Amino acid sequence: MNKDIEKKNAALKAVGFVEDGMVVGLGTGSTVKFMIEALAEKVKNGMNITAVATSKQSEELARSFGINVVDIGRVDEIDLTIDGADEFDKDLNGIKGGGGALLYEKIVASNSKKNIWITDSSKYVEKLGKFPLPVEVVPFGSDKVFNKLKERGYNPSFRMNGDSYFVTDGNHFIVDLHLNTIEDCYKLNSELLHIPGVVETGLFLNIADMVILGKRDGVRIFDK
Amino acid sequence: MNKDIEKKNAALKAVGFVEDGMVVGLGTGSTVKFMIEALAEKVKNGMNITAVATSKQSEELARSFGINVVDIGRVDEIDLTIDGADEFDKDLNGIKGGGGALLYEKIVASNSKKNIWITDSSKYVEKLGKFPLPVEVVPFGSDKVFNKLKERGYNPSFRMNGDSYFVTDGNHFIVDLHLNTIEDCYKLNSELLHIPGVVETGLFLNIADMVILGKRDGVRIFDK
Repeated sequence: MNKDIEKKNAALKAVGFVEDGMVVGLGTGSTVKFMIEALAEKVKNGMNITAVATSKQSEELARSFGINVVDIGRVDEIDLTIDGADEFDKDLNGIKGGGGALLYEKIVASNSKKNIWITDSSKYVEKLGKFPLPVEVVPFGSDKVFNKLKERGYNPSFRMNGDSYFVTDGNHFIVDLHLNTIEDCYKLNSELLHIPGVVETGLFLNIADMVILGKRDGVRIFDK
Repeated sequence: MNKDIEKKNAALKAVGFVEDGMVVGLGTGSTVKFMIEALAEKVKNGMNITAVATSKQSEELARSFGINVVDIGRVDEIDLTIDGADEFDKDLNGIKGGGGALLYEKIVASNSKKNIWITDSSKYVEKLGKFPLPVEVVPFGSDKVFNKLKERGYNPSFRMNGDSYFVTDGNHFIVDLHLNTIEDCYKLNSELLHIPGVVETGLFLNIADMVILGKRDGVRIFDK
């Protein structure tokens, strides 16, 4: 309950950065839901924006609120993307993908002029890694990638959806790495990307320009 | 016509390395077709092998010849993979993916104890890059990846299939980079892999253990 207040406070603050005429990237997740709701309110009041979604889930939600959502191929660039994060540190590096949308989130983020993350107060950490790191993998040979990750001591587990593998919007699987702590996130990210079959990692490095951490009575802003 | 003789000579030599009981990775392409044919002959004569294919195309061809093809998930490891290459240099680094199967080829190769490439005599080069470098990309946001590659001067073109984008077995697109020459293939590979939306590149580095280059009257072997 308290978390919902924090998420809402962060979401409301972030929406204040959206300006008329902007192309806005919509992240995915529970905090983003509050943001989309607040954004819809602005649109209802006459603000004109074009949105690009990072998941079917966010696309449907935004559309249901009357927000104009277009395919990423229809815009040249995204002015501002507002997304959640599962963990972030003082350098504004983070882990994302708890909701399984990391690939499209990273593609949208890397094509955005500005990226703001919104989180509740529990997401700020000294060191990344306690949150399981999602790795998106091609289904073909995914058991082999899994074994490699296991051999390297990364404690992988396939993300499941009941008895089946969880399938991303891009039709890939997700392997979550239970690392506890990450010593060098740039090195790990690069190492993972070089494994054939790995499509993307949940390490979002040097991407966020600002993190708005929601508190019960307001927000705390982490800026670059 | 001469090329076919060269390809066949390379293929026949390579099949000599296949031993009874092996799990064999089947590459993709015109040279591999000769290899699958020669391998089928061995199977008909009583050799017992299990095959893993790198494309639907090779899977169907091998099955039509009576070779036992299983999903990669059904084997622990691959003993020997025989595949083609579009270019290779003296370090046995190469460019692959002219046939569009680079992703599965790289996954199979990286899980093989030994990799042999078979080529006609035109594939050996001083420096990689004359052959367009295929990059497999996620369809979502692929125009943005294309623009990034263009900005960096990599002369990209989407691979087409008539009026539509060519679609890989993994349901991705391919962007071919017309580079002419690659100064540092390790650096380029890493740079490309770090672009969100890029799944894999056609740079096969430190993967081949041997290249059998077919000549009109025999073969030339490049060994590590």
